[in-house]
Amino acid sequence: MKALVYLGPQDKALQDRPKPMITAPTDAIVKVTRTTICGTDLHILKGDVPTCTPGRILGHEGVGIVEEVGAAVTAFKAGDAVLISCVSACGKCVNCRRQMYSHCTTGGWILGNSIDGTQAEYVRTPHADMSLYPIPPGADQEALVMLSDILPTGLECGVLNGQVQPGSTVAIVGCGPIGLAALLTAKFYSPAEIIAIDLDDARLDTAKRFGATAIVNSSDGHAGEAVMTLTAQRGVDTAIEAVGLPATFGICQQIVAAGGHIANIGVHGVKVDLHLEKLWDRNITITTRLVDTVSTPMLLKTLCSHQIDPTSLITHRFKFDQILDAYDTFARAAETKALKVIIEMA
Amino acid sequence: MKALVYLGPQDKALQDRPKPMITAPTDAIVKVTRTTICGTDLHILKGDVPTCTPGRILGHEGVGIVEEVGAAVTAFKAGDAVLISCVSACGKCVNCRRQMYSHCTTGGWILGNSIDGTQAEYVRTPHADMSLYPIPPGADQEALVMLSDILPTGLECGVLNGQVQPGSTVAIVGCGPIGLAALLTAKFYSPAEIIAIDLDDARLDTAKRFGATAIVNSSDGHAGEAVMTLTAQRGVDTAIEAVGLPATFGICQQIVAAGGHIANIGVHGVKVDLHLEKLWDRNITITTRLVDTVSTPMLLKTLCSHQIDPTSLITHRFKFDQILDAYDTFARAAETKALKVIIEMA
Amino acid sequence: MKALVYLGPQDKALQDRPKPMITAPTDAIVKVTRTTICGTDLHILKGDVPTCTPGRILGHEGVGIVEEVGAAVTAFKAGDAVLISCVSACGKCVNCRRQMYSHCTTGGWILGNSIDGTQAEYVRTPHADMSLYPIPPGADQEALVMLSDILPTGLECGVLNGQVQPGSTVAIVGCGPIGLAALLTAKFYSPAEIIAIDLDDARLDTAKRFGATAIVNSSDGHAGEAVMTLTAQRGVDTAIEAVGLPATFGICQQIVAAGGHIANIGVHGVKVDLHLEKLWDRNITITTRLVDTVSTPMLLKTLCSHQIDPTSLITHRFKFDQILDAYDTFARAAETKALKVIIEMA
Amino acid sequence: MKALVYLGPQDKALQDRPKPMITAPTDAIVKVTRTTICGTDLHILKGDVPTCTPGRILGHEGVGIVEEVGAAVTAFKAGDAVLISCVSACGKCVNCRRQMYSHCTTGGWILGNSIDGTQAEYVRTPHADMSLYPIPPGADQEALVMLSDILPTGLECGVLNGQVQPGSTVAIVGCGPIGLAALLTAKFYSPAEIIAIDLDDARLDTAKRFGATAIVNSSDGHAGEAVMTLTAQRGVDTAIEAVGLPATFGICQQIVAAGGHIANIGVHGVKVDLHLEKLWDRNITITTRLVDTVSTPMLLKTLCSHQIDPTSLITHRFKFDQILDAYDTFARAAETKALKVIIEMA
Repeated sequence: MKALVYLGPQDKALQDRPKPMITAPTDAIVKVTRTTICGTDLHILKGDVPTCTPGRILGHEGVGIVEEVGAAVTAFKAGDAVLISCVSACGKCVNCRRQMYSHCTTGGWILGNSIDGTQAEYVRTPHADMSLYPIPPGADQEALVMLSDILPTGLECGVLNGQVQPGSTVAIVGCGPIGLAALLTAKFYSPAEIIAIDLDDARLDTAKRFGATAIVNSSDGHAGEAVMTLTAQRGVDTAIEAVGLPATFGICQQIVAAGGHIANIGVHGVKVDLHLEKLWDRNITITTRLVDTVSTPMLLKTLCSHQIDPTSLITHRFKFDQILDAYDTFARAAETKALKVIIEMA
Repeated sequence: MKALVYLGPQDKALQDRPKPMITAPTDAIVKVTRTTICGTDLHILKGDVPTCTPGRILGHEGVGIVEEVGAAVTAFKAGDAVLISCVSACGKCVNCRRQMYSHCTTGGWILGNSIDGTQAEYVRTPHADMSLYPIPPGADQEALVMLSDILPTGLECGVLNGQVQPGSTVAIVGCGPIGLAALLTAKFYSPAEIIAIDLDDARLDTAKRFGATAIVNSSDGHAGEAVMTLTAQRGVDTAIEAVGLPATFGICQQIVAAGGHIANIGVHGVKVDLHLEKLWDRNITITTRLVDTVSTPMLLKTLCSHQIDPTSLITHRFKFDQILDAYDTFARAAETKALKVIIEMA
Repeated sequence: MKALVYLGPQDKALQDRPKPMITAPTDAIVKVTRTTICGTDLHILKGDVPTCTPGRILGHEGVGIVEEVGAAVTAFKAGDAVLISCVSACGKCVNCRRQMYSHCTTGGWILGNSIDGTQAEYVRTPHADMSLYPIPPGADQEALVMLSDILPTGLECGVLNGQVQPGSTVAIVGCGPIGLAALLTAKFYSPAEIIAIDLDDARLDTAKRFGATAIVNSSDGHAGEAVMTLTAQRGVDTAIEAVGLPATFGICQQIVAAGGHIANIGVHGVKVDLHLEKLWDRNITITTRLVDTVSTPMLLKTLCSHQIDPTSLITHRFKFDQILDAYDTFARAAETKALKVIIEMA
Repeated sequence: MKALVYLGPQDKALQDRPKPMITAPTDAIVKVTRTTICGTDLHILKGDVPTCTPGRILGHEGVGIVEEVGAAVTAFKAGDAVLISCVSACGKCVNCRRQMYSHCTTGGWILGNSIDGTQAEYVRTPHADMSLYPIPPGADQEALVMLSDILPTGLECGVLNGQVQPGSTVAIVGCGPIGLAALLTAKFYSPAEIIAIDLDDARLDTAKRFGATAIVNSSDGHAGEAVMTLTAQRGVDTAIEAVGLPATFGICQQIVAAGGHIANIGVHGVKVDLHLEKLWDRNITITTRLVDTVSTPMLLKTLCSHQIDPTSLITHRFKFDQILDAYDTFARAAETKALKVIIEMA
């Protein structure tokens, strides 16, 4: 089969690879019909993710059709249309019992990382019963691809950890795909204000179109002050960090109100300064999280009932044999205005 | 009246001062019968608390007898025996309505800070209805002094924010009075393991006597590794920071388990390193808090029902005219083994 | 001044009454500008509320202008435009400290019940600092009248107690004003399905217009079966009882899913059957509540940010001298299609 | 093998039965070493549990040694010492994903009910990975038998649903084994008062020995008044119903304080009166629950750390060939003072 293979830093290729086979009774083999590219795939290509070694098929998002299931799989059978979660969960280890599937002792985020992923014609999905979801009849296939990773990540790491409530003031620091996913899912809870912050005016325009009530271009280095002005010096109830840099985490510390929340989504490569000399008495909460995808059933319900339109995140569409173009378009997002790209296999 | 007055960095004296008077209808004047000294008072004496200016009567803990109340005070009358909370709360501002009394817009921690405090024969207590508590008949007066600040601080900032649960593994980093208060109140929730960490063997002995299940002397710089060994490399569910230094906050980051909590109590003077490059995907929560004293009614019930014995924190007793000796004893805690000192006025 | 006075069962009149005066330092006198009539006022007029005795001025909702404040009132002054909450709260008693203002030991629902109310040119509001709210600049006065009682009641007793979540299936049993208020505020949380149940097709039409995804006319006695069919025999996550009769509480028991919630809002006059023989192992939660109005600040924020349009509940408008007509219109709601009526004083 | 078989109402026998075999890849066969008898087994023997048909081997509690596992079982292997949970959970159905294991679509309480149970030399346990627990080294085997059902039931249905907190006032209505299990686990949370209510003075004595702070014999029909007197007419924060009769559920309604909780554990055979005409405005919560055994990992930790001594519930011990005597002793608890009986297989 064809597969997009990581060959080492800055190196990837569309190669022929053997079709995967069931290796554990809880596995399924899924024929992928649509996949996408994640910012994390770009991190891998920079050589930043040591668990992902050369030769790995990338990708941890997608939808498809079950081709074959192992002997212990009871929830799915060949022919079922399924959503593939970016997190594989056994459901029974000490962490899965706490619904912290991201830290499943035999799973977590392994697809396209420590095992082969979804940017291929077929993928082996471990712990299939807990890690695939039946596609509801009539659901939009492209919208569903957004439920593999980006929407549960925005919702769980940003919105739920940030405890967004009706009437809240929310700041979203970073309006790339993940920040916009946080914005879309924050609206489930009817916040009063959503302040979008980014360096790029085009992304801020998109944020506004998605429902931001105010936008702040942070390129002048004064985003913190701007947010304090917008909030009459009170600060925000929830600051969602969706970049992963010391500077953006710093903005969050500047703008969080007493009693507020900093919900980190960003993947950080270096330590940050935490200004406890200013924050020790401010009654704030800081959270980190790798998405658990525990909200996927909820998201499926909101999708089917039209509480959210995930296709608004999709800017480009490619056929699988154009996947190198897709990577290029996605990597040059500032120029191409790419958010999420859909890659169709057939 | 006699009062202990802050005169500037390293300078204090027992002076004669006019008896305070009612200045707002919500005030009460309380004749102090017992008070104590807090680590924060030592911070003030180092010049570290700019809101506290020379001439200020120190002290934010104590019990006494109501002498007089303002026209709007309905819950207390002259002659009532009362506990004085370290936090003054109007009960009606935007923050009090959220029960974040520490950030009351006309109160918070002001006693012995921005207004005169309790290390005096009399004290004016603003917002008396919300900031005094009736002393239950038969309650131990000395025990009650521990409910002004140290026990609600240990409970709220450490135990409740740290979400200690039956069966939890808890680490307490720093076994001074505040760390020990966290230890005593953690036991309300029946954790399985309480690991006490300190540089001082005497304090670790005390922690063990108070119920710690393991102790770690951190003077060799390897406390983090020791805790990981004790927990079979899993780490702790809750790490309570009760010191206020980068190094101790660093230990908390080393030992917190995936899905765990770092509950900061310590007063920090400088920023700390937050290792988001290691923690971004660990599903942890970090909290800061100035005590709200919202748990005082609960603590009064646990005191009266003998669920806790706060007098175990008391190591020394002085008369008010010996308060300079009391300060000396408290400041030289490493030698004197002082935890909390009771100062009796009469 | 003119006032609508309860004279005993089935008897009321618009009378001249002395203007109220400050009687406690925490009181305010408010010149009422707009008020409304509540279903509870009709209960009083049936003689069903023994705490309300003949001679009482009715009404517990409204907006107005502060005329005078007592010596202990600090948050308001003469001339301030205010929202009057249906619940008076001292903020400092044992129940107010738990934010259960409905059970304030010197307040609760007393306006137009055990003390004179808002259907008058002036009203004395006890505990003014906690029981009045400043009107945000530019806010719609009529919309605000809906925040005195009906919206916090629908939200707190129905939606919050019923734990409505994104993706939930919600049933609202009874689509009078209070059920519709629950429907409007349920939408804050983006439920997937809202099933409205009533005997009256006109009210069901209104429910549909307000966002119900399905409607069930219960006049055939088979509403329970209809809801089970609509939910593929799973039942609903949240059943909100907004009537107050054994039959409607019975429907809730029929349709609540395992793990679901029955949130009672209705005022019940007689006991009901609770089918524990069927429900003991169904992991359900049943709640009752008198509104605490603890959500009023949140509702003000959602109003100002256009997350909700409370004026959709208003069907009729009257001048104060037409208040007997207003009562008549409101009492004959089945014919007049009345939901909430606005009574303007000037 | 020998097994205790239900033969129809009032009829049971110790019979020879074939040893069970693996029928699904997720099954295990466990050689039972110790089991016990539950009040529910007596219900079955009265003919009250229609899902349990004649020919069924009874019993849903016990410990043992894994004999054999199915192909999909990964957490256990032959020779492992295990605790058998009363609830079988697949871990992956819609209800298990919500941790409502009691309503697992292919499990729940099925052992000794719709499939053969643990009062036998061997038992087949479905969904073994989620429904067995490794026995910690050195743990007391008899104590562990109390973790199959009675302790998680008391804790989850009574204490957790009843939201027992430090300083709470708790009433336990019914001091049979399940009420006493609620009492033992309530102490995890350091309530101030535990009021035990029963008709039997011997059980009340036991309750006192287990930590009840007050006891009320309800045989005079005035238990409600007695509790109100004990609580200065305030009522209790949590009323735990551990009987399953209209009268005892009625006591709970009489004594629950405003803002309080009624946590039902009892198995009810008939409907009860719910006095909503008195409770609609009292801000109370009523819960029902079939134990989910979601707390078993927590209970194992509290057992190993000596936060609880479940053996205090054990009053009698029998060998398996005396199981008919054990049933007789357990059934005549009023005379024999039996609480839990241990049945040892070997």
